[in-house]
Amino acid sequence: MDKYLNSQIAKIDTSGIRKVFDLASKIKDPVNLSIGEPDFGFIPDVAKSLHEAIDSKCYKYTNTWGLSELRVAVAAKLKMTKKSDVLPEEVLITAGASGALDLLFRVITEPRDEIIIFDPYFMFYHELPRMLGANVIVLPTTKEFWPDIEALKKNINKKTKAVIINSPNNPTGAVYPERIIKDIIDVLDPYDTLLVSDEVYEDFIYDVGHVSPLCFYENTILVSSFSKNLALTGQRVGYAAGSRGVLMAMAKLQQYTYVCAPHLAQVAALQNLNLDISNYVSEYKERRDLIYDMLKDTFEIQKPEGAFYIYPKVGDGEKVALKSIEKDLIVVPGQVFSKSNEYLRISYAAPKDVLIKGANILKEVADELR
Amino acid sequence: MDKYLNSQIAKIDTSGIRKVFDLASKIKDPVNLSIGEPDFGFIPDVAKSLHEAIDSKCYKYTNTWGLSELRVAVAAKLKMTKKSDVLPEEVLITAGASGALDLLFRVITEPRDEIIIFDPYFMFYHELPRMLGANVIVLPTTKEFWPDIEALKKNINKKTKAVIINSPNNPTGAVYPERIIKDIIDVLDPYDTLLVSDEVYEDFIYDVGHVSPLCFYENTILVSSFSKNLALTGQRVGYAAGSRGVLMAMAKLQQYTYVCAPHLAQVAALQNLNLDISNYVSEYKERRDLIYDMLKDTFEIQKPEGAFYIYPKVGDGEKVALKSIEKDLIVVPGQVFSKSNEYLRISYAAPKDVLIKGANILKEVADELR
Repeated sequence: MDKYLNSQIAKIDTSGIRKVFDLASKIKDPVNLSIGEPDFGFIPDVAKSLHEAIDSKCYKYTNTWGLSELRVAVAAKLKMTKKSDVLPEEVLITAGASGALDLLFRVITEPRDEIIIFDPYFMFYHELPRMLGANVIVLPTTKEFWPDIEALKKNINKKTKAVIINSPNNPTGAVYPERIIKDIIDVLDPYDTLLVSDEVYEDFIYDVGHVSPLCFYENTILVSSFSKNLALTGQRVGYAAGSRGVLMAMAKLQQYTYVCAPHLAQVAALQNLNLDISNYVSEYKERRDLIYDMLKDTFEIQKPEGAFYIYPKVGDGEKVALKSIEKDLIVVPGQVFSKSNEYLRISYAAPKDVLIKGANILKEVADELR
Repeated sequence: MDKYLNSQIAKIDTSGIRKVFDLASKIKDPVNLSIGEPDFGFIPDVAKSLHEAIDSKCYKYTNTWGLSELRVAVAAKLKMTKKSDVLPEEVLITAGASGALDLLFRVITEPRDEIIIFDPYFMFYHELPRMLGANVIVLPTTKEFWPDIEALKKNINKKTKAVIINSPNNPTGAVYPERIIKDIIDVLDPYDTLLVSDEVYEDFIYDVGHVSPLCFYENTILVSSFSKNLALTGQRVGYAAGSRGVLMAMAKLQQYTYVCAPHLAQVAALQNLNLDISNYVSEYKERRDLIYDMLKDTFEIQKPEGAFYIYPKVGDGEKVALKSIEKDLIVVPGQVFSKSNEYLRISYAAPKDVLIKGANILKEVADELR
């Protein structure tokens, strides 16, 4: 441990993923099903907006809250898609949803606060509050990978600062039905607990509708981004919306940290906020069906209804991931997202031929380990 | 205070600047000398690189450390310009220098650590460590606005985690000579105290050479950015370089917060790292001379040698700033950067005709208050 470092940074645990990625980095031309971002390149309309923003000299800082037109447009979209009554003044443009989560946890977390998350979880929810001294309470999910409401009831208390949900879910692809969202709110409501809803995959949904808690519960903070739906992962633009007091504190902190989300990306987000991306979503749905059909007889799998991940139960996730790497396939062992090592996360944000190769390798590995 | 917020966020004080900017925001067509960023628009070569990066499909996340070619290029430039022996593995690409400072303070600061800064200071140095529970020790500067070495000697101790310097300086435009840098290092060396050197204005230097502590002291963390020299303020790309253990911790944290600096901006920085910007620097030098000559008989002024700010002593800085706003001129009162209210920060990142208007308004205000 370096003598200059504080004890907080040591709490961030990256050991699980490092072993696999260190090995994976040695593969020259991998079959890569580990990637958490779209694989189509820039969407042509988005690229056009970026070019125009350069020509329009959008080079300066924006206000730390983000471009006011973008805040207005996001609030209008939330009204349309989620029946929310969030005002433009309650929308903060951030450096991706991760930037929003970072600001959020930093303004709400007191040491020894409890933060409830559900297993499996996106690792940010686990590591960031821990670093800030919170106790992260990891609760189980049902066989559909929905939050276990009975467990939530048993674990909520006055120290619970926030509950974090993520639908469509990374890594499982689960989409929470309305009754689950409402059951969660019923548990939180007597405590006024903050409900953080990470909806970055909301546009990637294949069978059922997407339900957000934003219109049902006033103590909701929505975080989302333009990374996945507009393929702007690398440009770092997203937003948080909801409870004004929390948002104002997040903006104050953003002024002293990120300053503002990148200007060009904000312009591209503004101009393409309501872009029709159904052709991309259809392609992901076909891929979802392809990978599910190829693997469903080999592994125990819940068919994902959203995002672009599938999360099969494979026995020893790390062993299967390591065996797969020997055959040039990169997938992420479940222990990166879970206290359990029984699963794998497979991303189907990859062309169909790559998916077929990957699925065949996984079946080989399963045969060998049987 | 919102019930969800922690006690840390309340420690960030933005009240000083808010009063002035709330009033300033009501002016329709202000004479604006408050802006801390270049006013020339995108540099043509940089714009060209951004366009090409879009066409080359640079849409994905980069590694959290940044593009490896950029890290190699930055290390090579540091070797050339600062005789440093920093390796590419010791360069972390960040979301601007502010992003670097944020990561740095978060990985080093323990509650009750002491962080030494010099008055006047860039407000990030004051607010960020305070939010993290550090005691920020504000030491005086000499009449040239150089760090007061005697004060540093008296105040350094085992609890001093870091000393922060900023040359060329915001808000004073002071450039520290080599002997000041070496005197600082001599004081820090017996304690192995971390020296944080913010050099974002290093290319804006008019009379003397720029000296960095990086090649003199191994416990230096350099933070810099492409915001000012490549006019990429709005695109959020900068870097930190130095002590490997600290940089590794910063990278680990960046993975869970910003994820990576924006990809397009990283490409633009890489392609223009050694761009000749002397025409812009010459223009700033002319502006510096213009504003200095116009104000030197009205106020007590130290002639700035770098950056694009001038910091006259005006008596009551807030009163002069508020009176100036009545005449449509926006300048920043010194108390934003200082425990003292005797100064004003004037940015000369503005066209000459605007500078002349602004200087005339300031002279009027000075006359009226005399």
